Amino acid sequence: MPEFVSGNAVIGQSGGPTAVINQSLVGLVEGLQAGLATSGKVKRILGMRHGVRGLVKEGEGGLVDLAAIDTAKLEAIAATPSAALGSTRDKPDDAYCERILDGCRRNDIRYFFYIGGNDSADTCRIVSEKAAAARYELRCFHVPKTIDNDLLENDHTPGFPSAARYVALAHMGDALDNASLGGIKINVVMGRNAGFLTAAAALARGAATDGAAPADRPAPHLIYLPEVPFSTDAFLADVEAVYAQLGRCQIAVSEGIRDETGAEIGPKLMRSDERDAHGNVQLSGSDALGDGLADFVKKGLTPAGGKAPRVRADTFGYLQRCWPYTSPVDVEEARAVGRHAAELAAKGDASASVIMVRTSNAPDAYRSECRRADLAAVARRTRHMPAEFIAGSNDVTQAFHAYCLPLVGDLPKMERL
Amino acid sequence: MPEFVSGNAVIGQSGGPTAVINQSLVGLVEGLQAGLATSGKVKRILGMRHGVRGLVKEGEGGLVDLAAIDTAKLEAIAATPSAALGSTRDKPDDAYCERILDGCRRNDIRYFFYIGGNDSADTCRIVSEKAAAARYELRCFHVPKTIDNDLLENDHTPGFPSAARYVALAHMGDALDNASLGGIKINVVMGRNAGFLTAAAALARGAATDGAAPADRPAPHLIYLPEVPFSTDAFLADVEAVYAQLGRCQIAVSEGIRDETGAEIGPKLMRSDERDAHGNVQLSGSDALGDGLADFVKKGLTPAGGKAPRVRADTFGYLQRCWPYTSPVDVEEARAVGRHAAELAAKGDASASVIMVRTSNAPDAYRSECRRADLAAVARRTRHMPAEFIAGSNDVTQAFHAYCLPLVGDLPKMERL
Repeated sequence: MPEFVSGNAVIGQSGGPTAVINQSLVGLVEGLQAGLATSGKVKRILGMRHGVRGLVKEGEGGLVDLAAIDTAKLEAIAATPSAALGSTRDKPDDAYCERILDGCRRNDIRYFFYIGGNDSADTCRIVSEKAAAARYELRCFHVPKTIDNDLLENDHTPGFPSAARYVALAHMGDALDNASLGGIKINVVMGRNAGFLTAAAALARGAATDGAAPADRPAPHLIYLPEVPFSTDAFLADVEAVYAQLGRCQIAVSEGIRDETGAEIGPKLMRSDERDAHGNVQLSGSDALGDGLADFVKKGLTPAGGKAPRVRADTFGYLQRCWPYTSPVDVEEARAVGRHAAELAAKGDASASVIMVRTSNAPDAYRSECRRADLAAVARRTRHMPAEFIAGSNDVTQAFHAYCLPLVGDLPKMERL
Repeated sequence: MPEFVSGNAVIGQSGGPTAVINQSLVGLVEGLQAGLATSGKVKRILGMRHGVRGLVKEGEGGLVDLAAIDTAKLEAIAATPSAALGSTRDKPDDAYCERILDGCRRNDIRYFFYIGGNDSADTCRIVSEKAAAARYELRCFHVPKTIDNDLLENDHTPGFPSAARYVALAHMGDALDNASLGGIKINVVMGRNAGFLTAAAALARGAATDGAAPADRPAPHLIYLPEVPFSTDAFLADVEAVYAQLGRCQIAVSEGIRDETGAEIGPKLMRSDERDAHGNVQLSGSDALGDGLADFVKKGLTPAGGKAPRVRADTFGYLQRCWPYTSPVDVEEARAVGRHAAELAAKGDASASVIMVRTSNAPDAYRSECRRADLAAVARRTRHMPAEFIAGSNDVTQAFHAYCLPLVGDLPKMERL
């Protein structure tokens, strides 16, 4: 087998940033510097500005020299949330991937690393196939990243543990706020297709509550996932039962909840007089679902001629993915997946997606490893909450609790009178 | 002067909870146990469930015995956010205060402590005056608490530093998220009448930027306070200028912004077809302002026939006041104000509001003290951002930065390429 040609390496970050995505970037730089750059296989280590946009851009400014950054600065960047190189929402199609390949040719790139979700894995796959067809020697690696935790083959994905930690901490504090003033509190959590992040709210309880009736669970009393068809009637009945018994109710709901036909719930809750001049439902922002559910509950639970209950909704928004304090496990693993991609490249792998595998979940002995999967096994498709993590229509199981708890780091102890 | 009678002490928590309000509760219990309880002046230390509601309630369950709680549990409660006794939004009028006085008589209460904002100070004032008029010996103390930081006589109020820390951290992470994907990001911060908490977003910049043009400031580029009349036209021009230059713009805006007539901005931004059947503007939840501003900016900055800019809004909501991680200065001061109230009572003060005074703001030598003020000096009225903290129509000054920075604790360093 002839020797693989030497050339430059390029690294990009794509999609919604996470709090630890720069750990993967720095892990890649470290891994390349320790391996392929030392052996002379990799000449320059370049970063793409705003993902593949930086590579397809003609002229100056799309690529930066990452090897020129000193270790102290790299470490500081690793500890900083959000994509230091900038990110992009572009999902390259065939023609776009052709331009990516042109960018590789133009810049003598022989190693292509893309940190992102299933779309990024797909970009790697297409580019890799195009390069092979064109007999341009190029090695393509996908490094996993997404707070949604929805990549196939992965036990979990870097970015998720820190976001899950934020969601758990938020529900811990908010549960006490709700208890102190009473009423119904709805928290809308990110994750349009997969419910892992919403499910992480359950960690706020301090213990698994599999099988307990909603009012007997510590808050959050109710958890609604996109994997479970959402019925507004059942929801109202659930909330009413908890509120009647406790005078309060904390609810975690995924932004992606859908009814049994797959239709999103937010628009269903908007009243008909909130349509625009063209008759379209007005969904002006990400807060529509929270406000819609709050309105719906308030109306549904106000007795005829009686006082409306206190109902509040918060939509957690972007802070979930960029909060500066992270999960220690996440920090370590996000660095490791980057380093592992460089190692796979050094070992001669032609293309792969790095995956996270859990090797031990014994109490106080959580361990994980990086391994490889084919790009096609991760590309495009979405992983959902498995059945064993879902308890009925409004909760998660002990199995989910055991799965998620080791990822988020120590949680503070909340004491009550 | 005849000796003051001995009897029971009662403590309550009122209004929106904070992350450190239980420090004040525990400080009071400690202070009473070290002083008046030791000397026999205070027999029982009682807690009111849900503020004065617990005291006016007939029968069981409205009061709890705080002296029965061991020190380890008290410390754990102190470190837990939100009101452990429960809170209330009741703002007692004259008749309600009469019932509070009855509750004191019924429970042999001679020391009344209320942790809260200016309404709680006013409750203390009215109850104190009623007791004097009725010749019922009662000493009444207000202990300051509010994330809004809007109490007169106080340099700042317990609860504000931790909330300010949350707002600063949120803007730090979110600024990087905004930089990585570009576009316009609007963050709506709590504080309906006072802009201190919104202003704390400026700490995310790492340094004061007094006098810099918006696009030359690190994010947040624009800060809008309720103290400064808000013009939608000027706002759009501000955003457009930053966005044109940087391709992004991060904005911190108070939920309480008003136009020059004092009218709230949220309803002004709602379109006419979003009125209900009675013609009333629909403001379904707390997110209306953020969504309204986002819509307004998107429309205003979309070129004719061109592509709309990416505009997103987050409404920070309740997490600002209940996030489990706090400012160390806030923890210490919230404990101190509680202890100080017990000490004032032990020294024979008949009624007072504890106030926070800054005694040193030398670099790395911030110091504060608790002192007393008359209840009437704090009751009811609202403190606003002073003129020297406000820079033009969309920023805060170096003086605000110097004021706020020592309160929030160390902030992480963010590094960029």
